[in-house]
Amino acid sequence: MAGKKVLIVYAHQEPRSLNGSLKDVAVAELSQQGCSVIVSDLYAMNFEPRATGKDITGTLSNPGFFNYGVEAHKAYKKQSLSSDIIEEQKKLQEADLVIFQFPLYWFSVPAVLKGWMDRVLCQGFAFDFPGSYDDGFLKGKLAILSLTTGGTASMFSKTGVNGDFRYFLWPLQISFGPEMASEEERKRMVASWAQRLKTLWEEEPIQCSPPWYFGQ
Amino acid sequence: MAGKKVLIVYAHQEPRSLNGSLKDVAVAELSQQGCSVIVSDLYAMNFEPRATGKDITGTLSNPGFFNYGVEAHKAYKKQSLSSDIIEEQKKLQEADLVIFQFPLYWFSVPAVLKGWMDRVLCQGFAFDFPGSYDDGFLKGKLAILSLTTGGTASMFSKTGVNGDFRYFLWPLQISFGPEMASEEERKRMVASWAQRLKTLWEEEPIQCSPPWYFGQ
Repeated sequence: MAGKKVLIVYAHQEPRSLNGSLKDVAVAELSQQGCSVIVSDLYAMNFEPRATGKDITGTLSNPGFFNYGVEAHKAYKKQSLSSDIIEEQKKLQEADLVIFQFPLYWFSVPAVLKGWMDRVLCQGFAFDFPGSYDDGFLKGKLAILSLTTGGTASMFSKTGVNGDFRYFLWPLQISFGPEMASEEERKRMVASWAQRLKTLWEEEPIQCSPPWYFGQ
Repeated sequence: MAGKKVLIVYAHQEPRSLNGSLKDVAVAELSQQGCSVIVSDLYAMNFEPRATGKDITGTLSNPGFFNYGVEAHKAYKKQSLSSDIIEEQKKLQEADLVIFQFPLYWFSVPAVLKGWMDRVLCQGFAFDFPGSYDDGFLKGKLAILSLTTGGTASMFSKTGVNGDFRYFLWPLQISFGPEMASEEERKRMVASWAQRLKTLWEEEPIQCSPPWYFGQ
């Protein structure tokens, strides 16, 4: 949709991988739609995943007992977080849509992306008390997880060896097992993602409460 | 149990935190039992979480198209993984029990610990095809997640705002909300963990299949 701002948080080492293609096609399709698209290419940026005292510039509020969450919260308010965090927060703040593009590592995001979440989504910026869940500060933004797996779709089904992917992941666009797929099939995965992006703005966000998710 | 080997993979920045105390009490109690205990203090080690080409020493099998999983697998077999990974694999290989001690970050492990899992548990070492799940190469070892949360136990119950912790974590020893607890309560958390460690070797490992887990 023309004028919308999109942030793609991308975590793959190889530009020519399927993840790279899915990222590229999203940039192309969404730019074509008139969106402005920014990519945070985490490996290329050598993005720091570790949550440490280095994330706080200036003095710590309690140097004798380091509490990351408390220090990051205070530093956010004093605008003294490290520049790489501030930079990502700005991109996210301005985005209408965030796409996380990554391969599944051990049933979750790769560490470099987990670090982006741990460090960027700090208290005060992404949430506070009050100000979480339905009242979270990023309310109203759209988010999509677009990911690839090592196994096939059937391995991630309810009776598959890995269990239903609903057990460990929430609303998502999965490309199952590109390494086991043919070149043709990989192309179809990219095309189907491009296709979905065309009508993305008309989609209803999924209500991802535990009852919906686990069928209770 | 005398003679057993224990590896504690510890991910907290502050030695005097509750996580630090839980780690210390585990070292003390298990050493007292005659176990040999090793701690991998990930922040202190500045452990690398990012899965990159630097993890493979020597030549890549396909430098033109970097596939981390494939390259790590081959490097494992050629013993050409980076020394920090080899070191952790040795510790894990020798351990009868692994304890993961960490604070919950965004419903999962902190990035530095996710990076330990992503990089250390590579194909060939932890699993292969065949050789996964019940036939995994780490079969027979005990593992415990010992973690702290920001929220209270009720927030992680089935009707709580965060949902049942079973939705996102598997067998575990949780210390709920130490920051909201009194010094007395924190001491009880440490004591209760020490108490559990006394009879740890008699515990039956939990059968953590999806049906057991989700009550189906």
